[in-house]
Amino acid sequence: MPDHLSEIRYELALASRMLANEGVLDAFGHVSIRHPDHHGRYLLPRSRSPQLVEPADVLEYTLDSEPVRAPKEKLFAERVIHGCIYEARPDVMAVCHHHAAAVLPFCIAGVPIVPVFHLGAAVGEDMPFWDQRDEFGDTNLLVVKPEEGRSLARALGRHPSVLMTHHGATVVGKDLRELVSRSVFMCDNAKYQLQGHMLGKVVPLSSGETRLAGSINAMPNVVGRTWEYWTMRLEHAGLSPPRANRRRGSQSAHHKRKWRG
Amino acid sequence: MPDHLSEIRYELALASRMLANEGVLDAFGHVSIRHPDHHGRYLLPRSRSPQLVEPADVLEYTLDSEPVRAPKEKLFAERVIHGCIYEARPDVMAVCHHHAAAVLPFCIAGVPIVPVFHLGAAVGEDMPFWDQRDEFGDTNLLVVKPEEGRSLARALGRHPSVLMTHHGATVVGKDLRELVSRSVFMCDNAKYQLQGHMLGKVVPLSSGETRLAGSINAMPNVVGRTWEYWTMRLEHAGLSPPRANRRRGSQSAHHKRKWRG
Amino acid sequence: MPDHLSEIRYELALASRMLANEGVLDAFGHVSIRHPDHHGRYLLPRSRSPQLVEPADVLEYTLDSEPVRAPKEKLFAERVIHGCIYEARPDVMAVCHHHAAAVLPFCIAGVPIVPVFHLGAAVGEDMPFWDQRDEFGDTNLLVVKPEEGRSLARALGRHPSVLMTHHGATVVGKDLRELVSRSVFMCDNAKYQLQGHMLGKVVPLSSGETRLAGSINAMPNVVGRTWEYWTMRLEHAGLSPPRANRRRGSQSAHHKRKWRG
Amino acid sequence: MPDHLSEIRYELALASRMLANEGVLDAFGHVSIRHPDHHGRYLLPRSRSPQLVEPADVLEYTLDSEPVRAPKEKLFAERVIHGCIYEARPDVMAVCHHHAAAVLPFCIAGVPIVPVFHLGAAVGEDMPFWDQRDEFGDTNLLVVKPEEGRSLARALGRHPSVLMTHHGATVVGKDLRELVSRSVFMCDNAKYQLQGHMLGKVVPLSSGETRLAGSINAMPNVVGRTWEYWTMRLEHAGLSPPRANRRRGSQSAHHKRKWRG
Repeated sequence: MPDHLSEIRYELALASRMLANEGVLDAFGHVSIRHPDHHGRYLLPRSRSPQLVEPADVLEYTLDSEPVRAPKEKLFAERVIHGCIYEARPDVMAVCHHHAAAVLPFCIAGVPIVPVFHLGAAVGEDMPFWDQRDEFGDTNLLVVKPEEGRSLARALGRHPSVLMTHHGATVVGKDLRELVSRSVFMCDNAKYQLQGHMLGKVVPLSSGETRLAGSINAMPNVVGRTWEYWTMRLEHAGLSPPRANRRRGSQSAHHKRKWRG
Repeated sequence: MPDHLSEIRYELALASRMLANEGVLDAFGHVSIRHPDHHGRYLLPRSRSPQLVEPADVLEYTLDSEPVRAPKEKLFAERVIHGCIYEARPDVMAVCHHHAAAVLPFCIAGVPIVPVFHLGAAVGEDMPFWDQRDEFGDTNLLVVKPEEGRSLARALGRHPSVLMTHHGATVVGKDLRELVSRSVFMCDNAKYQLQGHMLGKVVPLSSGETRLAGSINAMPNVVGRTWEYWTMRLEHAGLSPPRANRRRGSQSAHHKRKWRG
Repeated sequence: MPDHLSEIRYELALASRMLANEGVLDAFGHVSIRHPDHHGRYLLPRSRSPQLVEPADVLEYTLDSEPVRAPKEKLFAERVIHGCIYEARPDVMAVCHHHAAAVLPFCIAGVPIVPVFHLGAAVGEDMPFWDQRDEFGDTNLLVVKPEEGRSLARALGRHPSVLMTHHGATVVGKDLRELVSRSVFMCDNAKYQLQGHMLGKVVPLSSGETRLAGSINAMPNVVGRTWEYWTMRLEHAGLSPPRANRRRGSQSAHHKRKWRG
Repeated sequence: MPDHLSEIRYELALASRMLANEGVLDAFGHVSIRHPDHHGRYLLPRSRSPQLVEPADVLEYTLDSEPVRAPKEKLFAERVIHGCIYEARPDVMAVCHHHAAAVLPFCIAGVPIVPVFHLGAAVGEDMPFWDQRDEFGDTNLLVVKPEEGRSLARALGRHPSVLMTHHGATVVGKDLRELVSRSVFMCDNAKYQLQGHMLGKVVPLSSGETRLAGSINAMPNVVGRTWEYWTMRLEHAGLSPPRANRRRGSQSAHHKRKWRG
């Protein structure tokens, strides 16, 4: 992997751990980015819990989800989710598949997540559902065959996210930071929607509000604020990814200085 | 900024981080105080997540929410919330705008928060709602125009707090410590009210009880206890704001000594 | 205070911090024990959040809740709760008053907490309610007058606990460790009861089961296990009370050794 | 105990602490494994909270739950749960009894836990209920007599888990790692099922899906990922069991290196 990709591999490890630290990912789930130099390839870590991903774990795949170099490591069984979406959606530069606790109740009850607060508008107006059994009958619900991945990508369509019945969700973004904030706010939105439902009648944002508020999460001022915050929370938890070319001692001192001022 | 303001800037950074540590603020939200020497000015941090605010981040604004000195930093887009409330409410000395998870379900279901326990009486008897679309139609729900800020201030009226549909809440106080405890107890009250609603019929405090219990949070004995507790929790989490004029080593030792006895 | 009370003051500070660490107490609430040598006196910390209580904060009171020595410190306004219960209940050796988040929904909805699991039987079969307004009309809900304390003690009767409408709960025990475990299990029971109620119909333990299981929490085997566990959790959180007569360095080393083996 | 068992005792302490760290166990609950050399014996820690179990705490029992060597330590009163299940189920190699907060609401409302997401299929299709009072009338709900243990084992039958009314659950596995992941995913499944129920109608997996997805948690790729993740979370929390034959300094350095990379 060429040297100028090292920062991108670091960002992907950072995003992966950040989403774990914010409760979107747990033992499972994965985040990928499209290869910056080859539109027909993507970068995804080897099979490992997202909190543990390191820059050196990041592997390169073609869009049919074959590793570019013969791998020594175990690969994610569900990598076709990423390849099929990059294939179907040229505008998508980053993908996250997860089983977030906030989202699972909706996948179980078959209730759509609708935008209920301004930042939640990042999930869009009509979130589609995909039920693997509609097309494939009884399976173990893992998305491992190319045709399963393509079916999921069709259900996603032009949307920012798709709910997967009895399984989880897949979220896309036009860059890694939009993807991360959309994934976090989708979970926040789901929690508030469920509790709002318990209190009374949930009224979603109007179409106009959803359209106007749907890009707040990608405003430079907002991305700057959230990325700094989630990075610092990860650092404060002692869970930042390692930098290959830096000694740990100096790194920690640097982190502490930024956080405490 | 004159030197005697340094303690006030420290207190504002402390309040900001404290409210983040207690779950009222997250990546977003902001706290301001009226300028102690200029009734027509207020102090608000630069655009930054509240957990990260430092005394040096605090800027000075006129009541039309223009920075007194040309800023090098990014400013909060929603600072008109603060300016318009200080303009409309001469008795208000501190303002907090937030999207607390405890409060959002009420903003979504359109259900008023009512005082359900003695400390929750700090939120007052009739909490008003403000829906930006009533006056301004479809927006991205951010309060950025002066007329939006003035409309919100009108909805707040003489109340201690206002709920913002699909957005969050804004809370005011006669000083910073009353504001902090009111904000925390409003979230506690909301959580208990939602769960009480799930159990059975919620009966709020009577008008007389609300009036009598509404100032418990500002009793010197109570403020002393909560401020010490929330400060120590922040210190114990390693998240206190930095003191410009103190070396870190001696500060930490001092904090540990106070906490452990 | 005589020297042989130092261990008791330490245990009271430990219990106070333990109950805060387990989520029963927060900024508020207080724990007392009856004086081991004077049945007509009790020991209660000065006004301070329970997580911060130190052995040196513990003061001595007569049963009319007057301090035995003229205090330099602020006192808890609600200390009559303790005095009036020790007066009315010669069998009670320890008292805890709290506003636990788990219990407040029941105090708001007026729904009794009933024993729903074996350890929850420690709360007894029929938990009484006390509503201050029944006898005293509109108040700020704080229990500060002797007649208010006596009214609460009458409502408690022979029960292990009493719920206080719009306020919280008061729990009693025949010793400090029974009190602590009863307070913790009462909160667990309340959480499970509320969620059971959301799932379906809650069926409490039978009278016979409640009587038989009601003393599990005081079995030596169980008390030994819980006290070690809660003590270690407090130590691991770095929140144990200070020992006046021990250097911190050696104490920490000792704690780490016990915890890690 | 022969020397080659030391790794097994370490794994049992690790599993015990891991399940506590993931919220399945608290002050109570216990995990056992069948003796690797004697099919008619099992290994279970002395009576101690699971977060605190050390390899040296592990004792050896016959299947009638008598200790093989006269014990100096206190024993778990409910050890017959383990012995009676190993007796009745030759295929079972590991047993966990717990009172997880996620599961208790179902034990109280008498609502079965059904598989609602792919990983939750590890709990099987028809989870049985066992109510101690059906056969034994009023008890303190502890399972201490051999006939109570045998009755529970009969209720478990060939299932992977049994719910115990007003008490908790008992889970079995064909090895320790399957047991741990099944216990964790059963709690996740219960949380999602309860919240799905609050949102709308819960539709479980089909029989075919349950059968196909029911072994995902035991796939080598998945076990590798979860075991690394839960181990690292425990290490990061500073709660790993001690290794008798390793100095602490070198162990911590080793742990940090693995975690941070």
